[in-house]
Amino acid sequence: MREEWTNFAGGKWESDIDVRDFIQRNYTPYDGDQSFLEGPTEATDKLWGELKELQKEERAKGGVLDMETEVVSGITAYGAAYLDKDLEKVVGLQTDKPLKRAFMPYGGIKMAEQSCQMYGYTPSPKLHEIFTKYHKTHNQGVFDIYTPEMKLARHNKILTGLPDTYGRGRIVGDYRRVALYGIDRLIEGKKEDFAETNRQGMRRGDFQLREEIADQIRALNDMKEMALSYGFDISQPAKNAAEAVQWLYFGYLAAIKTQNGAAMSVGRVSTFLDIYIERDLENGTLTESQAQELVDHFVMKCRMVKFARIESYNQLFSGDPVWATLEVAGLGIDGRSMVTKNDYRFLHTLENMGPSPEPNLTVLYSSRLPENFKKYAAHISVTTSSIQYENDDVMRPVWGDDYSICCCVSATQTGKEIQFFGARANLAKCLLYAINGGVDEKTKMQVGPEYTPITSEYLDYDEVIKKYDTMMDWLAHLYVGTLNMIHYMHDKYYYEAAEMALIDTDVRRTFATGIAGFSHVVDSLSAIKYAKVKVIRDEDGIAVDFETEGDFPRYGNNDERADKIAVDLLKTFMAKLKYCHTYRDSEPTTSILTITSNVVYGKATGSLPDGRKAGEPLSPGANPCYGAEKNGLLASLNSVAKLPYEYALDGISNTQTINPGALGHNDDERVDNLVNVMDGYFDQGAHHLNVNVFGTEKLIDAMEHPEKEEYANFTIRVSGYAVKFIDLTREQQLDVIARTCHDRM
Amino acid sequence: MREEWTNFAGGKWESDIDVRDFIQRNYTPYDGDQSFLEGPTEATDKLWGELKELQKEERAKGGVLDMETEVVSGITAYGAAYLDKDLEKVVGLQTDKPLKRAFMPYGGIKMAEQSCQMYGYTPSPKLHEIFTKYHKTHNQGVFDIYTPEMKLARHNKILTGLPDTYGRGRIVGDYRRVALYGIDRLIEGKKEDFAETNRQGMRRGDFQLREEIADQIRALNDMKEMALSYGFDISQPAKNAAEAVQWLYFGYLAAIKTQNGAAMSVGRVSTFLDIYIERDLENGTLTESQAQELVDHFVMKCRMVKFARIESYNQLFSGDPVWATLEVAGLGIDGRSMVTKNDYRFLHTLENMGPSPEPNLTVLYSSRLPENFKKYAAHISVTTSSIQYENDDVMRPVWGDDYSICCCVSATQTGKEIQFFGARANLAKCLLYAINGGVDEKTKMQVGPEYTPITSEYLDYDEVIKKYDTMMDWLAHLYVGTLNMIHYMHDKYYYEAAEMALIDTDVRRTFATGIAGFSHVVDSLSAIKYAKVKVIRDEDGIAVDFETEGDFPRYGNNDERADKIAVDLLKTFMAKLKYCHTYRDSEPTTSILTITSNVVYGKATGSLPDGRKAGEPLSPGANPCYGAEKNGLLASLNSVAKLPYEYALDGISNTQTINPGALGHNDDERVDNLVNVMDGYFDQGAHHLNVNVFGTEKLIDAMEHPEKEEYANFTIRVSGYAVKFIDLTREQQLDVIARTCHDRM
Repeated sequence: MREEWTNFAGGKWESDIDVRDFIQRNYTPYDGDQSFLEGPTEATDKLWGELKELQKEERAKGGVLDMETEVVSGITAYGAAYLDKDLEKVVGLQTDKPLKRAFMPYGGIKMAEQSCQMYGYTPSPKLHEIFTKYHKTHNQGVFDIYTPEMKLARHNKILTGLPDTYGRGRIVGDYRRVALYGIDRLIEGKKEDFAETNRQGMRRGDFQLREEIADQIRALNDMKEMALSYGFDISQPAKNAAEAVQWLYFGYLAAIKTQNGAAMSVGRVSTFLDIYIERDLENGTLTESQAQELVDHFVMKCRMVKFARIESYNQLFSGDPVWATLEVAGLGIDGRSMVTKNDYRFLHTLENMGPSPEPNLTVLYSSRLPENFKKYAAHISVTTSSIQYENDDVMRPVWGDDYSICCCVSATQTGKEIQFFGARANLAKCLLYAINGGVDEKTKMQVGPEYTPITSEYLDYDEVIKKYDTMMDWLAHLYVGTLNMIHYMHDKYYYEAAEMALIDTDVRRTFATGIAGFSHVVDSLSAIKYAKVKVIRDEDGIAVDFETEGDFPRYGNNDERADKIAVDLLKTFMAKLKYCHTYRDSEPTTSILTITSNVVYGKATGSLPDGRKAGEPLSPGANPCYGAEKNGLLASLNSVAKLPYEYALDGISNTQTINPGALGHNDDERVDNLVNVMDGYFDQGAHHLNVNVFGTEKLIDAMEHPEKEEYANFTIRVSGYAVKFIDLTREQQLDVIARTCHDRM
Repeated sequence: MREEWTNFAGGKWESDIDVRDFIQRNYTPYDGDQSFLEGPTEATDKLWGELKELQKEERAKGGVLDMETEVVSGITAYGAAYLDKDLEKVVGLQTDKPLKRAFMPYGGIKMAEQSCQMYGYTPSPKLHEIFTKYHKTHNQGVFDIYTPEMKLARHNKILTGLPDTYGRGRIVGDYRRVALYGIDRLIEGKKEDFAETNRQGMRRGDFQLREEIADQIRALNDMKEMALSYGFDISQPAKNAAEAVQWLYFGYLAAIKTQNGAAMSVGRVSTFLDIYIERDLENGTLTESQAQELVDHFVMKCRMVKFARIESYNQLFSGDPVWATLEVAGLGIDGRSMVTKNDYRFLHTLENMGPSPEPNLTVLYSSRLPENFKKYAAHISVTTSSIQYENDDVMRPVWGDDYSICCCVSATQTGKEIQFFGARANLAKCLLYAINGGVDEKTKMQVGPEYTPITSEYLDYDEVIKKYDTMMDWLAHLYVGTLNMIHYMHDKYYYEAAEMALIDTDVRRTFATGIAGFSHVVDSLSAIKYAKVKVIRDEDGIAVDFETEGDFPRYGNNDERADKIAVDLLKTFMAKLKYCHTYRDSEPTTSILTITSNVVYGKATGSLPDGRKAGEPLSPGANPCYGAEKNGLLASLNSVAKLPYEYALDGISNTQTINPGALGHNDDERVDNLVNVMDGYFDQGAHHLNVNVFGTEKLIDAMEHPEKEEYANFTIRVSGYAVKFIDLTREQQLDVIARTCHDRM
């Protein structure tokens, strides 16, 4: 056995690159409580203080501290740089200064330049020339080949948030491999893979793959060079916990130096790192305080990740998120809890350094997790509202016990799978297209096919369903076709060599579509079916509003009539997606997940039969409509839990806010109750829950008085991520305030 | 009808882009003699004098007059530039100075830099950075994905001259379209094509095509911009002959500004331009002298085309050729002769301005061409040795009556077809691999598969044939696989947008492989079959030489025994090529055609059973082996004529040198005899003939005294092109001298 691996239990992982095998053979489950945890070291306090100062400066400067304009970002584009060299236990910055945003033109030179200009920086004319005259970018490639129909659908926002102007993200490199194996072994593995791709009668798909591997090997060599500039030789495996954290971070750093995906997840690293920490603790070469310091400093790095964004991006994804998603907990497929002390340490960073949106901490939940851990996580939720929960019991059967959350809530097998990220189709708008014969209700353009519109005064359920079904056929086909183009061009002009270098060559690819406006469609169809919906048409005969006479069941109340419509809608759209050819034979999936984009999507969507007026935000993700939930938290959760995960493998996001008073009279009661709520919710097969514990009055106060010190890091969960509340636009703050805050269970 | 088209006969070409239809409806066949021709104008003499001075300077400077190092070549990379603005009737240079070679990095930055350095220029570090850090080049792409076996085969030169370090060429834009339609109409057509590529369930092949069309449209817009810099608006059709020549040349100029293919052919433009000239002559707006001046100046432009090359390229293709191939004559599929006065004018340039390798003037021959024209062409051959003949009667049934020669001898339908150029497989070396069990006879490396070698002292014909067949299977598969990679990467990194913009979107693609060492294999197999061939092996057991006891029939003597082996060999190898999948479903073809590369190929090839010793040049193209032809010119021609063109649609090149004395006692006799020889040869279905009329003594004198004025432009035909004899390396001069010079018919 290699010297670096001394005291580890050997196995298949020694000869094959197999981090999961290493973890399963070596991790130490922990079912004790949080009493072992240590507070921040002096270095951590000081370093975090320095970072907070920079964050304050950044906010004072309008959201961006500094921007690169002359250097194209790349793994070796800069030499070593530090936040505070003497204090940092984990080193490495994206650029030459902390919080300075890199120049990343490969996704689209226009966007890279726009974002500079937006913040008062002048992008380099030399780089402009290179990326317009000599090197085409992803964005240009996509717009070169879009059909007019695609451009129209995009312009009218029935297809929204498409990753055609930025990195698609949602690829989690297995950064643990750098620590466990060192780069040289990884290069060797990729060289073997390259040799194995040689087969009889190779075609363009083979050539593409071979070139990708060649680029991956180049990226691995660059990682070594980058690490050397910091004085570390990562060609060989990490020898201890400090190196393991550092090696792993260098892998992640290579990713965030080369890609600006909407989601740049860190992955499932906690239990892995615990193995190194346990060995060092055992050896006496590390104390608990030092272990926590390593985790705190690593987390600080995650809090420092920044990308240059443009206005329209910020509107979709408010509050400057990067989705450095990082998981803790979960069970192994052998039934053992995978909770380690390190999972506590990661959650504890929210106490040591206060709440923060990044990393996007995710608890892989099961009612079978150790009670102590469930309570500690619930305690963190109650006190920080900064973490999310996903149901390990529904994900484990699909993805095994080594999956990572690659974006907000979407699982991928770590190091074995990637997503082709696909943003969203606005199914609410599609319903209006069905009614209006393909004419957009806002722009009056003929966007969809010119099918016969509905002309009756009152909507007939069967007619609506029939027309909606046909319009969804059109939309699904157009949507998948658009994404196919995007991913072809992304591969061609903005391939993720650094991340893919840390992923198996024989990778599984899912094609991650998404649905927006879900609950509004459900409630609208319910209104049409169970009440009387009268159409108000404008002078062009376009349905611009609806008057609903009588009551109807609404999704979010555990009412089978509405909830069945929800399940049917999901199944129907998924089937239509599956009918289409997908790029690189990827597996189509879908999500019900809108992040903060529900506000922008809503702006572009007309009035709906469910009573939502034109321009109002859509409800986020799979959340029931605002004001629809009449029967309390549990009834709402029961409705969402009915959505079958196997039809939305990309995730079903649910964000709930609970008034502390509704949860209990003191923190202990609240923790116990929250654990009970989650046990009940997830045992029904629900997928995801964002837990916020505060009252509306706190939100209103924070909106009105953002200058108050207590709100500087006031973090809330929105659909799929956490965000500092004061970083949201006022519009989005109002949207959050408008959401149901449950005052009763 | 558009004003620019006044007096033209209308037809389908008005609504559709169809130059052939325009030609067929409008050209004026000419069966008179050359007496109408005019000598050079004063401007022509002066301009040609200036160009000759520059050519002299160029030769004095070692072959390159000037090189660009700072500007990447492109359609609009330079402003207007002239040889002599006041004299030129046709304007436009590749760079900013005449004969200055452009910097073309897309094929391979290393090669672009090497060629600068070879001539003492320092390439730009800025461009180095761009084309290594930001933009991958074709060459890097190919080497990223080659298999070790491919690299080995390439290194050992069993696959040779592969277009992986330079533009593949062999794509002839239909430059006539610029003149007939103007750019705006062409853009409109491409936009329609783009719309038509939209289809259900598009995949990566569709995306590739759509992006290509987008790039073509960009190139068309650039052509307009380039022409405007010279003061011409080519958005609309040409109004007269002068504009037609100029518009057409701008189209060609865009091609040679963006691509450095081994062959950058001009195409079949003579009859087309004649239509404009006839109209102007009729109108009285042009005189014959002015018409000739236009043609002379256009031809001068073709004589000025230059590319920066590297040493290994120059060795393959000696004498700085660019294959600006240009055709005259041929018959229409309606049986009319397509010879026009302009065909005379193009041949007459060799008299007005003396012989020259470029443009590579090609007569599309048929015994049914007007007698006057056949005689004039023969006269030009006898006096200049600068033109080649190809059999229109075998090509017309395959390619119609509007094909262009895209390289040396290979036909493609103008504007409707391209070639994926594929260089050559060395079948002579392959025969040695069959004998030596895949071990290379020069390097002793195991290159081919480790099949059992032949170990007997004397070669057994059946055993050799069986092993050779299997080894050719391997070679054909490897060869096609290698070319597939090259063309995938060429499309990706060095796509010919400017040329393809002038070609139908729904293009036919042939996959043009080639055979080297053909006649040596034929004679070797004949020796093994009809004589006794003893193997001489070295200490490693590798066959390094052969002793042949007894006589055997040799290819080139009209002996059916040898000639049948030749036909069988061609058919066998072609069948093996067809068995393989080819990139973009292109149609596999092959050629027997080696250009001057026969010398380099021969250097890398060991001794053969036919008596050729290791390192000696292979015989070029389909030529019989040196010294094999014992029965005179006609017997040799009869052997070559037996090779069926339909099995070598890429061309069967035959180069013959005839002593003037053998052809006749005076020029009239020589002309008559040459016409008779060609009628007889081509009526048998032969494909191609390079005609040289001089004696060996002239070659020897020119080699020894290159400084003599009479040799400055002494041009000879080598395999597939013409070259100034004094520009050949001494090695190649000796090779030419060694070839059979027929002293009897």
